[in-house]
Amino acid sequence: MKLIRFINSSGRTVPGIHREDGSRIDVSAFGEDYNEAFFGSDGPARLARWLETHAAECPMVGPDVRLAPPCARPSKIICVGMNYAAHAEETGARPPSEPVIFMKATTAISGPNDPIVLPRDSTKTDWEVELALVIGKRASYVTEDEAMDCVAGYVLHNDVSERAFQMERGGQWVKGKSADTFAPLGPWIATPDEIGDPHRLRLWLKLNGETVQDSNTSDFIFNIPTCISYISRFMTLLPGDVISTGTPSGVGLGMKPNRYLKVGDVVELGIDGLGTSRQEVKAYQATA
Amino acid sequence: MKLIRFINSSGRTVPGIHREDGSRIDVSAFGEDYNEAFFGSDGPARLARWLETHAAECPMVGPDVRLAPPCARPSKIICVGMNYAAHAEETGARPPSEPVIFMKATTAISGPNDPIVLPRDSTKTDWEVELALVIGKRASYVTEDEAMDCVAGYVLHNDVSERAFQMERGGQWVKGKSADTFAPLGPWIATPDEIGDPHRLRLWLKLNGETVQDSNTSDFIFNIPTCISYISRFMTLLPGDVISTGTPSGVGLGMKPNRYLKVGDVVELGIDGLGTSRQEVKAYQATA
Repeated sequence: MKLIRFINSSGRTVPGIHREDGSRIDVSAFGEDYNEAFFGSDGPARLARWLETHAAECPMVGPDVRLAPPCARPSKIICVGMNYAAHAEETGARPPSEPVIFMKATTAISGPNDPIVLPRDSTKTDWEVELALVIGKRASYVTEDEAMDCVAGYVLHNDVSERAFQMERGGQWVKGKSADTFAPLGPWIATPDEIGDPHRLRLWLKLNGETVQDSNTSDFIFNIPTCISYISRFMTLLPGDVISTGTPSGVGLGMKPNRYLKVGDVVELGIDGLGTSRQEVKAYQATA
Repeated sequence: MKLIRFINSSGRTVPGIHREDGSRIDVSAFGEDYNEAFFGSDGPARLARWLETHAAECPMVGPDVRLAPPCARPSKIICVGMNYAAHAEETGARPPSEPVIFMKATTAISGPNDPIVLPRDSTKTDWEVELALVIGKRASYVTEDEAMDCVAGYVLHNDVSERAFQMERGGQWVKGKSADTFAPLGPWIATPDEIGDPHRLRLWLKLNGETVQDSNTSDFIFNIPTCISYISRFMTLLPGDVISTGTPSGVGLGMKPNRYLKVGDVVELGIDGLGTSRQEVKAYQATA
């Protein structure tokens, strides 16, 4: 099953399903959002059962709706850094001996096709295609054997990063990871049965039509059960939490000379089974 | 006004008020928790008006209730690191030229008198008394002049930190800041009118009765408006978000030899106008 959320004609964000044939239906009538309560109570399985008898009554979703992020705001986004050897190398770092983790403010989350807004004074905003996963149950000190049972689904993520904020402003990476629109998620969350082995997925990113990242999750330094088990030793994961598994080589920071996003650029990205997303780069404009 | 939350006789976490005379009342009848919606809609002022006509009907709260954290889970906790010159010095770091910020998982939040649970394999769990503040309105690119208007209240925080996880495990500090029980908050959130100048507050921490931290917020490197304005350039702050302003000298990491928490230790801390909290240190025990 593929979970989407979209902005309906009243301007509300509502849940839907992207079906096998590409059509999409509004499942507002199920009465739940894709949030902590939903994922923590076997929501995808309950929704699948509900659809057996209710799908025919669900309204179709038009082709031009604006997609929202496919999950409600999670308690946290944990990202794994330097999880592809070739990416560690391009940034000048040695491959880590244990997972590097950092957080991204959840206010950074945006829809898969929403613009990336360059923060004020940004000069080094960069792209990072990543496989992210959504946690399906509370996880604390889970073993690697138990870890895959904690996954509710997978989702495409662009871990947008301002490199000057991340690395030249003192302290911790979170400064360069957390601007609004820096976490486009979606188009959909695919349940694990849709994906098969998540360690054999091609992922790619194009900048203005040119492929700059093209790799495969088979190149992970730390695989998904290792990452989940590891993170769960340092903090409790809640249903709905998002873990992003790191980006392969091909980011702007790794290019010689460095290459960063500018107004008008178009970023497109995709992962096998998780669809594609597209973000146009815009300048920050004060509202209000 | 001083906002508390406590566990009622049914085991539910409910809101209350700590009054001038030390008595406490249950304000469940107001119908709101102290969360994003409350702080984002002028909740403290609305509650104060409601109390003018309803306080007399509110049940008293017994002296032996267990206090909960005085706010519901926020979207994020942002901490300022190295914000007292003497603390930067004791950790061997130079005073930062701009604020160091890091995140702490919100799952770390616990009540002010709940135990600190040492994570599995912890050898270097440390204490950090801090003045934290709760955001009262959405804040993005606010100026220093506007910043104090974004503060809904102040709260005592122990920014518990596992130094080996924080600094010896590769990457980012979040690993050592995010274990469950690593963010005791409370006893109460004091609205700004209760506190006067937040840059003149004594803060202290005792370990087993011995004073180990004793300083004053007048020693901040970066004051509160500077911190809020600075953080708001890197991410959007939401109502209810917690910003912790850093710890003064006297942490275990700064002692020669280093001194860390062990099972049975008792930590007590306080800040002028924000009450005191007390945490006993316990070993991790797997549940279920």
